[in-house]
Amino acid sequence: MNTYRVLEIKKTVFSGNDERAQKLRADLEQRGVFLLNLMSSPGSGKTTTLMKTIGALKDRFRIGVMEADIDSDVDASTIATSGVKVIQLHTGGMCHLDAEMTRQGLDSLATEDLDIVFLENVGNLICTAEYDTGAALNVMILSVPEGDDKPLKYPVMFQRVDAILINKIDALPLFDFNLERFKKYIGELNPKAQIFPISAKTGEGVEAWTTWLTSEIHAWKAIHTTGKGE
Amino acid sequence: MNTYRVLEIKKTVFSGNDERAQKLRADLEQRGVFLLNLMSSPGSGKTTTLMKTIGALKDRFRIGVMEADIDSDVDASTIATSGVKVIQLHTGGMCHLDAEMTRQGLDSLATEDLDIVFLENVGNLICTAEYDTGAALNVMILSVPEGDDKPLKYPVMFQRVDAILINKIDALPLFDFNLERFKKYIGELNPKAQIFPISAKTGEGVEAWTTWLTSEIHAWKAIHTTGKGE
Repeated sequence: MNTYRVLEIKKTVFSGNDERAQKLRADLEQRGVFLLNLMSSPGSGKTTTLMKTIGALKDRFRIGVMEADIDSDVDASTIATSGVKVIQLHTGGMCHLDAEMTRQGLDSLATEDLDIVFLENVGNLICTAEYDTGAALNVMILSVPEGDDKPLKYPVMFQRVDAILINKIDALPLFDFNLERFKKYIGELNPKAQIFPISAKTGEGVEAWTTWLTSEIHAWKAIHTTGKGE
Repeated sequence: MNTYRVLEIKKTVFSGNDERAQKLRADLEQRGVFLLNLMSSPGSGKTTTLMKTIGALKDRFRIGVMEADIDSDVDASTIATSGVKVIQLHTGGMCHLDAEMTRQGLDSLATEDLDIVFLENVGNLICTAEYDTGAALNVMILSVPEGDDKPLKYPVMFQRVDAILINKIDALPLFDFNLERFKKYIGELNPKAQIFPISAKTGEGVEAWTTWLTSEIHAWKAIHTTGKGE
């Protein structure tokens, strides 16, 4: 059933996003649904990385995906080929999702039969970092061609994430990206962030990422899952 | 004098950006200052492209540069090495510049002795496209690693620009970027847009871009320059 629905997200009219994000996080904990918010610039490889991640996790977890874009369904169409449950969210020009918009997406996706939901956020390093979506885990992708100086220019994003995937490492010989310099920047901004160099195209490094992610999900479920079977 | 100042931009409190952009454009026409608004995702190569463009144009025109970022001065510091007049604008977390913010930057840069001002906008394909800055020419960069499907996902940006630079073409062998497919998308969205494949790193294609830009500036100056000598 390689199909997906499209939801036109309504703009949030309330203030107090932080409170609504905490409420959504608590609801998801009670329902045993692990929400991962995946962010990056346009073209960093979010969808390809997600496809590899789904491939590694889908035998162990029941997975849903929310693809957020201002327009188009190309990503939902790609993800649908993996066989997982997917919905395309259209933000109507807005450059981010907040907690209320995320809740609209989750309601439409329907999460009763899911263990994990991946939210592929809008391609953007600024607005997306400023809104807590209610996710249990915030992850970003920086691709090698973008350059190792991005933490200097988009500090809020790099400060707020739990893990950073350095994608397209197969292209390292072609670009002036210094991984040690990058790690030094992150060591100053966000020393707790996990860093995983990967190539979603060749698969290099993906196992280290999905192994870590699996252990994070298990640790979360051990604390939060109540009556829901796995 | 490889120095630059930093201006903390004040958030615009007025509405009616389109009217203020028209007013700024008319002011710049009267003063004979050609403003180019350069937009792209983070890491597409705006600063490197600007350095090459400045190199090609600086014997013919008096150039100023405004570098807009939410934080950091790395780009202004790079541009300053070219010897042109440069100012770093900090947007205080905002993901775009509007016409009023652009005017603040121009006032601080001081344009009496300039023919051209390049505005390197915040790295972003969404917000920046939604605000008319008052520029005479809107140009964007899409880099090869970002993928040829970006016009489908960020249509407003691709619809509104006068020219598109496809940067990092030296990396074409490594990425699945189909230039013909990209041109087909643009042919449907914005058939008048000029497309220039370039490599700001190797210099390939840069001359075609700067030759076209020079003719655009001359055509504009022929119409608008009044008392200002060249």
